[in-house]
Amino acid sequence: MKIYTKKGDKGQTQLIGKRVSKTHARVESYGTVDELNSFIGVAIAELDQEDMISDLEIIQHELFDIGGDLANVTEKKEWALKEASITRLEHKIDAYWAEAPELKTFILPGGEKAAAHLHVCRTVARRAERLTVAIDDGSELPPFALAYLNRLSDYFFAAARAVNARKNREDILYKRGKDVFK
Amino acid sequence: MKIYTKKGDKGQTQLIGKRVSKTHARVESYGTVDELNSFIGVAIAELDQEDMISDLEIIQHELFDIGGDLANVTEKKEWALKEASITRLEHKIDAYWAEAPELKTFILPGGEKAAAHLHVCRTVARRAERLTVAIDDGSELPPFALAYLNRLSDYFFAAARAVNARKNREDILYKRGKDVFK
Amino acid sequence: MKIYTKKGDKGQTQLIGKRVSKTHARVESYGTVDELNSFIGVAIAELDQEDMISDLEIIQHELFDIGGDLANVTEKKEWALKEASITRLEHKIDAYWAEAPELKTFILPGGEKAAAHLHVCRTVARRAERLTVAIDDGSELPPFALAYLNRLSDYFFAAARAVNARKNREDILYKRGKDVFK
Ligand code: B12
Ligand code: B12
Ligand code: B12
Ligand SMILES: C[C@H]1O[C@@H](n2cnc3c(N)ncnc32)[C@H](O)[C@@H]1O
Ligand SMILES: C[C@H]1O[C@@H](n2cnc3c(N)ncnc32)[C@H](O)[C@@H]1O
Ligand SMILES: C[C@H]1O[C@@H](n2cnc3c(N)ncnc32)[C@H](O)[C@@H]1O
Ligand SMILES: [Mg+2]
Ligand SMILES: [Mg+2]
Ligand SMILES: [Mg+2]
Repeated sequence: MKIYTKKGDKGQTQLIGKRVSKTHARVESYGTVDELNSFIGVAIAELDQEDMISDLEIIQHELFDIGGDLANVTEKKEWALKEASITRLEHKIDAYWAEAPELKTFILPGGEKAAAHLHVCRTVARRAERLTVAIDDGSELPPFALAYLNRLSDYFFAAARAVNARKNREDILYKRGKDVFK
Repeated sequence: MKIYTKKGDKGQTQLIGKRVSKTHARVESYGTVDELNSFIGVAIAELDQEDMISDLEIIQHELFDIGGDLANVTEKKEWALKEASITRLEHKIDAYWAEAPELKTFILPGGEKAAAHLHVCRTVARRAERLTVAIDDGSELPPFALAYLNRLSDYFFAAARAVNARKNREDILYKRGKDVFK
Repeated sequence: MKIYTKKGDKGQTQLIGKRVSKTHARVESYGTVDELNSFIGVAIAELDQEDMISDLEIIQHELFDIGGDLANVTEKKEWALKEASITRLEHKIDAYWAEAPELKTFILPGGEKAAAHLHVCRTVARRAERLTVAIDDGSELPPFALAYLNRLSDYFFAAARAVNARKNREDILYKRGKDVFK
């Protein structure tokens, strides 16, 4: 088996159920979900926190669920991503959020190397969210993809802060910022 | 206080002064400024050059200034980013530029790990610049955002070269390149 | 010589042969090729595999060839990127592919730090491919750019898997995935 098929050399590719241009909004969306998944791979490689590594591996599987759902424009399908995955993210956010000092203002993304990479994941998740909102091709959107991606960037924010808190590294506050968190 | 509000789960969000789609050009722009800010966090975590770390922290604050300015579509506002920040960048560029050997042709982005990450920052700054140029919603643009982002990518280029020069690591010249720098 | 010319401070820039907005599809495309090139710089900095480092350096030169070709909208030009570069990539893919265990399902991007960064390169190459497909300005496209970028993401996939295989690190299979590779 060869991995390259040369079938996409002219800029067309396949969704599940339809042949489209590689510029199709769904390809942009799941392509960016895949990019996010790769940055999570980098963050995992920099992390030494077992609980987060195991969260992130679950999230990587769920991003494949979302990717497959987004690629699928056939009728009568069952969605791979379930609402329970969002609830699970929320529990994780609450737990990590409780580990870091209360926040009033924005913080500079960074700190520990792993925290810095989690902030990259946060912002790439937000890019993936924007590109998923942009899908407007008449086919159904997976019902939980947007909420999941929205929560996921908050997960990365909470996790990044928890990493820094665990290492006793204080987040640097944005200095000209007024209180934005309520 | 919870960090997630679920208000953006349907793809809408708020600027300062207006509710818009997450696909709004301003959201793309400051979302990418935030992504750049996160890559700077990674670069800082890889750097051992105190002067650059302290530049980059100032730049991180300034990117929050820009982000807030870009998010703000209200009337009669004062802009957070001042022209002086551009002048400061130019002085830094001149200083780092003088540290590296004269350049005639393009160089391959890379070298020391920190230099490689500064090249990532350089190209993400240019992506942020492109997305800021794309804003065309009738509201005023912050007056110095474009010039700042333009200069910022040159700052990263000069800083990356200075890192390699300080470590006696020669940049690899693009071999089929004619002389492009004048 | 100063690196900054301030000529692009208002959002316009130059192709080879034409002055255009920085939002021009060609600028998006070669700007992303440049971003990919920078991530390759990071991957090289994380790699300890001499054969791959030397592949990647060749690829960095070829991406400059592509960048110059994409920037060039003048008549009667010779293209810098030749078809032979694609053939060379295919030989490399075949060789690395043979080093890793047979694959039936998707794998989670990650593993060794260098492998994780190669997956980032893979997905950024795909983003560059999408933005190159999007060019639609009436000027000729370099004839081999799309096929090269398409093959390049498969190269990164094969190389990432080979890194993990060489380090006896098993790729994690996507668990809800059916057999997708044929
Ligand atoms: C979506 C997709 C992706 C997504 C993955 C999203 C996800 N699922 O998580 C992303 C973008 C991440 C991706 C990446 C890659 N992919 Co891909 N991908 C696909 C695609 C389009 C669908 C795969 C899938 O999820 N199928 C769902 C499975 C479970 O479905 P199935 O068993 O095929 O069919 C079921 C349903 O989908 C449905 N169905 C399927 N087709 C149709 C059609 C109609 C008309 C109907 C009614 C129903 C229907 O019926 C079946 C019953 O359940 C296939 C091409 C294709 N159309 O099959 C390529 C494909 C599997 N990918 C391929 C490749 C090469 C890759 C990459 C290596 C590319 C790269 N260089 O990065 C990477 C590998 C990623 C990794 N980490 O392993 C190749 C494999 C080539 C080979 N030799 O077999 C394929 C075959 C595309 C091709 N070139 O032809 N991919
Ligand atoms: C722009 C923005 C961002 C930008 C930051 C840009 C910057 N300033 O540097 C970016 C994209 C980076 C960002 C990121 C995040 N953000 Co944010 N962000 C905002 C937003 C829209 C504005 C914040 C701001 O800068 N305000 C400027 C401050 C100083 O203004 P202010 O005190 O509110 O009001 C002044 C003026 O703006 C003006 N004004 C304000 N509103 C209005 C309205 C009208 C009609 C008028 C006339 C005037 C006016 O009057 C005031 C006097 O000075 C707020 C929502 C909002 N509209 O307030 C969310 C908000 C603060 N963000 C939020 C969140 C969650 C985040 C992230 C964690 C998201 C994530 N997962 O990544 C990150 C955290 C980043 C970090 N590193 O800390 C949440 C906080 C939730 C909470 N529990 O409080 C908010 C409230 C949005 C929400 N969900 O409702 N954000
Ligand atoms: C395309 C381009 C890029 C691409 C490179 C693509 C590639 N070739 O691989 C990318 C996006 C990567 C890039 C990046 C950068 N670039 Co640049 N780039 C250019 C650009 C537009 C063309 C350079 C090129 O490849 N020329 C091909 C060379 C070999 O051609 P030439 O000798 O000039 O001309 C030949 C043909 O092109 C043709 N020709 C040229 N012009 C014209 C016009 C007409 C009408 C016709 C008919 C023919 C024709 O005739 C010649 C015979 O062969 C020039 C501006 C320009 N228009 O020259 C800026 C330019 C070289 N870049 C510049 C800069 C600053 C950078 C960056 C530092 C920006 C940054 N901060 O990231 C980086 C450095 C990257 C690195 N790693 O070294 C500056 C240099 C400033 C200076 N002091 O000299 C320039 C001059 C732009 C400017 N600001 O004015 N760049
Ligand atoms: C915190 C602030 O970030 C903005 N916001 C919300 N979702 C996204 C996204 N996907 N990408 C970029 N910015 C976003 C909104 O303006 C919100 O108020
Ligand atoms: C060095 C060359 O890079 C291009 N250029 C200028 N600004 C950007 C940007 N934000 N993104 C990508 N390319 C850019 C122009 O073609 C310039 O001449
Ligand atoms: C493996 C699957 O990835 C999708 N695909 C093909 N090319 C790209 C690209 N440049 N970016 C994102 N996704 C792509 C197609 O759907 C293909 O079948
Ligand atoms: Mg959100
Ligand atoms: Mg510039
Ligand atoms: Mg392909």
